[in-house]
Amino acid sequence: MAATNLPLDADRLWSDVMALAEITDPAHPYTRRSFSALFLDGRAWLARRFADAGLAVRIDTAGNLIGRLDGADPSLGVIAVGSHSDTVPSGGRFDGVAGVATGLEVVRALRDAGVRLDHAIEVIDFLAEEPSEYGLSCVGSRGMVGALAPGMLELTEPGGETLREALRRVGGDPDRLAAARRDDVRAFLELHIEQGVVLESQSLDVGVVTSIVGIRRIEIVFEGAADHAGTTPMALRHDALVAAANTVVGVRRVAEQLAAEGSEHFVATVGILTVEPGGSNVVPGRCRLVIDVRSTNPALTQRFVETVECDSAACAAAARVARASLVTLSDGPPVACDPMLRDVLRRCARELGLGETDLASGAGHDAAFMTRITPAAMVFVPCRNGKSHAPEEWADREALAAGAAVILQAVKTLDRSLPR
Amino acid sequence: MAATNLPLDADRLWSDVMALAEITDPAHPYTRRSFSALFLDGRAWLARRFADAGLAVRIDTAGNLIGRLDGADPSLGVIAVGSHSDTVPSGGRFDGVAGVATGLEVVRALRDAGVRLDHAIEVIDFLAEEPSEYGLSCVGSRGMVGALAPGMLELTEPGGETLREALRRVGGDPDRLAAARRDDVRAFLELHIEQGVVLESQSLDVGVVTSIVGIRRIEIVFEGAADHAGTTPMALRHDALVAAANTVVGVRRVAEQLAAEGSEHFVATVGILTVEPGGSNVVPGRCRLVIDVRSTNPALTQRFVETVECDSAACAAAARVARASLVTLSDGPPVACDPMLRDVLRRCARELGLGETDLASGAGHDAAFMTRITPAAMVFVPCRNGKSHAPEEWADREALAAGAAVILQAVKTLDRSLPR
Repeated sequence: MAATNLPLDADRLWSDVMALAEITDPAHPYTRRSFSALFLDGRAWLARRFADAGLAVRIDTAGNLIGRLDGADPSLGVIAVGSHSDTVPSGGRFDGVAGVATGLEVVRALRDAGVRLDHAIEVIDFLAEEPSEYGLSCVGSRGMVGALAPGMLELTEPGGETLREALRRVGGDPDRLAAARRDDVRAFLELHIEQGVVLESQSLDVGVVTSIVGIRRIEIVFEGAADHAGTTPMALRHDALVAAANTVVGVRRVAEQLAAEGSEHFVATVGILTVEPGGSNVVPGRCRLVIDVRSTNPALTQRFVETVECDSAACAAAARVARASLVTLSDGPPVACDPMLRDVLRRCARELGLGETDLASGAGHDAAFMTRITPAAMVFVPCRNGKSHAPEEWADREALAAGAAVILQAVKTLDRSLPR
Repeated sequence: MAATNLPLDADRLWSDVMALAEITDPAHPYTRRSFSALFLDGRAWLARRFADAGLAVRIDTAGNLIGRLDGADPSLGVIAVGSHSDTVPSGGRFDGVAGVATGLEVVRALRDAGVRLDHAIEVIDFLAEEPSEYGLSCVGSRGMVGALAPGMLELTEPGGETLREALRRVGGDPDRLAAARRDDVRAFLELHIEQGVVLESQSLDVGVVTSIVGIRRIEIVFEGAADHAGTTPMALRHDALVAAANTVVGVRRVAEQLAAEGSEHFVATVGILTVEPGGSNVVPGRCRLVIDVRSTNPALTQRFVETVECDSAACAAAARVARASLVTLSDGPPVACDPMLRDVLRRCARELGLGETDLASGAGHDAAFMTRITPAAMVFVPCRNGKSHAPEEWADREALAAGAAVILQAVKTLDRSLPR
């Protein structure tokens, strides 16, 4: 495709993404963890850019940074575009930021073209989309849809600060969370890098997301006995790591079976495993692991969880340890993107001469929560080798501009076509 | 057995062990890690007690704290008694300390009885017997036998300090290590808690150690790709934890087979396993594990290592990751305790009316290194439920005193019977 003659400024969009990437922990590029000082630096920079673009800037009670441009007809509600500016540790430059910068560029491109929408437009930087130090992801989008339960505010980071305190610290108001709940959003659009290889391998410009996987996170703790590694005979051990390792092996086997069954997206990962006390000469007394299960089909997730519950109990018994706990940390169901918005995005892509395809999202996104209060849809842009959540994460300048142009066209189309 | 009428002061011995236990990280009792400020506090306390007992106190160039009482005949060399005062993290009150306090009590009991030995006697607190932050154990006893190789001094702890710098910091002299090498020690005796259940289960007072296991430590690193846990299909993953978990399972299986083969002591443990980057939503890109292998039979260790080398390579291939390294971190051969000293210890125990048995040691000890320069032997005392390297580690006051009395009797016997 030719990314020339796009109705926006590809360089301006690109320079925003690169500028925000500079606001990182220099020892671990690219790291801008939610609630951190760097995160607040990034948001201060974004707020200035929002204001420069003529947006009225505020932080809602759920801690979302919002830039708003009123529409010509105050009765019509809001078209919202956004994503998030926080990152995973040692993450990339695009995951999240690309979608926020797209929203900003859409507003500037409309202004440059002298277009004033009938609807208000809001650019949203959702708070803490990535799993935060408080053990929760999508904090801001949960808040915006009324799904940030009071109990979640009592979650604590390792230093002991509650999410309630942290939310207040970044400008939110945990005592007035209901005020963040919206009923005036008529459409939500989010651009994001694909984080997979489908678009790249098929040389396509954009993916229009059909549905977003459900994500369930399960924590298992095994407790054995931290005995001396030299003097405790093999037959008398209570080795928590042996139970955990067998569980990891089982998770992989079952996940491969379910993934191979059909066309539904299914993956499961053990990304966290800790061993205590963690000395070379001590039999592991305690192991904690976290399983991340994702599927577009809740029935597959349910079958997986039932098998792992059974398997992990058997692994514990075989290693003579206790499965001290098996807890569901979070459980978000899969959600479908809005068919009408998907149709608009596909048509806009084709009008711009771009190659597009339908795609399921294996990653969770703020858009998944936004479907609870408004029609929502997503545009994916290709990223190199499918790499994400890593410093080498990369999307080309033209690819990003093409995706943003689809969002821009869709915003203009929706402004005319949304039910009034 | 009746621990009354022992030729030493059981309460004085006990109060030394308890007093040293108080010098601990209060958040993680009982922790007095080698080279730490607490460790130096403990040594300052010990040095005062040594001096109070009439010992001349020094730190040798290998960082060992030594209290010495000259003998009547300067031509005869030294009988040494000792162990170590450092602990593992969240360890116990007896491992190491019991042997140092025994040496001190032996000196005091001799003095109280008006006995002056012909040989000099030295009480030794060996530096860093437990695996230290620098990745090395038995630092001081290695130094005393000329086995602290120059390369080992360049090992670094996570903060970047070299062992060379640390050794200087605790009063050693890395530039004059050869001066720590001894040729004047005629016998070395070490009391230690059993760290197993043999004595307790047979209601015996002391174990006379026949041999000390060889310990080999092997580090394996698997490197895969830290991909997104949601968007990376199962079939395209390079999950380092899957390779590591399968290796842990294999280590356990092979160790159980070799342990079941015969009467030789054989155990193998994975006590350290780390996962990077360690996020719930990231496929593990790198895993490091450390295998601790111990046997009284080097041929069993060799068969184990060959199997694990082969298995871990297969695990890596099956998970589509690289086994980036397999390194032998340390390799100490099994050593036999001196037959003459063992005979003396057995006879002394019987003379004291104590029940004794021969026993292999599954743990490494400073005595293993000391066999390189002098006849050496060990006395084990029972510990509750075999628990060690844990806060609940426990030996009874009377059991400790009984073991110390055996050492005292043996010192007196050896002073007369050692070749002159």
